[in-house]
Amino acid sequence: MAKLVLIRHGQSEWNLSNQFTGWVDVDLSEEGVKQAQNAGKLIKEAGIEFDYAFTSVLTRAIKTLHYALEYSDQLWIPETKTWRLNERHYGALQGQNKAEAAEKFGEDQVHIWRRSYDVLPPLLDASDEGSAANDRRYANLDPNIVPGGENLKVTLERVMPFWEDQIAPKLLDGKNVIIAAHGNSLRALSKYIENISDEDIINLEMATGQPVVYDFDEKLNVQNKTKLG
Amino acid sequence: MAKLVLIRHGQSEWNLSNQFTGWVDVDLSEEGVKQAQNAGKLIKEAGIEFDYAFTSVLTRAIKTLHYALEYSDQLWIPETKTWRLNERHYGALQGQNKAEAAEKFGEDQVHIWRRSYDVLPPLLDASDEGSAANDRRYANLDPNIVPGGENLKVTLERVMPFWEDQIAPKLLDGKNVIIAAHGNSLRALSKYIENISDEDIINLEMATGQPVVYDFDEKLNVQNKTKLG
Repeated sequence: MAKLVLIRHGQSEWNLSNQFTGWVDVDLSEEGVKQAQNAGKLIKEAGIEFDYAFTSVLTRAIKTLHYALEYSDQLWIPETKTWRLNERHYGALQGQNKAEAAEKFGEDQVHIWRRSYDVLPPLLDASDEGSAANDRRYANLDPNIVPGGENLKVTLERVMPFWEDQIAPKLLDGKNVIIAAHGNSLRALSKYIENISDEDIINLEMATGQPVVYDFDEKLNVQNKTKLG
Repeated sequence: MAKLVLIRHGQSEWNLSNQFTGWVDVDLSEEGVKQAQNAGKLIKEAGIEFDYAFTSVLTRAIKTLHYALEYSDQLWIPETKTWRLNERHYGALQGQNKAEAAEKFGEDQVHIWRRSYDVLPPLLDASDEGSAANDRRYANLDPNIVPGGENLKVTLERVMPFWEDQIAPKLLDGKNVIIAAHGNSLRALSKYIENISDEDIINLEMATGQPVVYDFDEKLNVQNKTKLG
């Protein structure tokens, strides 16, 4: 039986300042570092040994993974980083303070952008300064698929090929996997794994830095779900 | 023209206590962490952007790589860890204090073990507690190739296949590569890259945490070698 551990990155500097983050490469806060280190200690106490590690190409998730592995004495595990595990791209909202956005666009509109399954935020154009199209880490991506803004539905659609091709085969092979990623890319994975409806998924909240452990049977049915700590 | 940056891991806790380390998974000292962070700053100042990163499966090299990438704002670079970049395995000397070993075996003998190209140290047996054969990170290795002790010649022989298969093709493709590893695995690589003789290689000393930059032409001839900092 394979285990999958999901960890949402520790608190970031923009979680603290209440800004829309998305693909902006914001660092962990001091508290976020502690949360990630504590996640490693919890994994060690639980005796979970990984075979493979996956994360996004965003610093806050990568550092969370590194602390979690270091503090569970398994920093040597093979690690793969992919844009497909990135946070939902928040389009032109990225960098804006959430309260200020509510004043500017209205609370209802901002609520819809944050909580609907399939409404897109205002998009960033490839020519905009903050566009992922200008970021070296996405230079190998077909420019036609570099997003200018995503909803949870689109996020799920670009997470799933990575799950199907890279993660599921390892779990089916009985390997233990850790994924350190983001609120919405992990929501997308959880939606698929637990078969949660479009309406209900938005209510799923993962605490920053808290490992969530799934035990699977040989058909990738969830046998058990536990949260550490 | 491709660039290759080699970094010997920052000072470790056993560099401090003067013990033979080899494959024992000793952490960086506080000074070693600072050296690795400073390496990242130097790389950033030099404006070097990497396409691929390689390191060993030993924590002190992995953490050195992570700090160097983080402090040069490129923690998202793809990273591969391999036992083939591990430090030279120091056999039954691992864990022993170097001064005490000199008293026990004689200074001349210890000098030979440390500085000869092709004399093996006393070997660890697979049944010994500290043997790599009992370490989960080497569980996928053919047991016949898990070393019980290495000289520099043997170290070079197991580093080279990784260079040939994974690193050289990327440099030939014009990609920039960083390798964070160990005094002797980097000595082995330098010996090959600079065509240094068996006699002279032992005099090559790399400072901990100091990036060494090679510029190659399209045939992998060294055009330029510089040390940062």
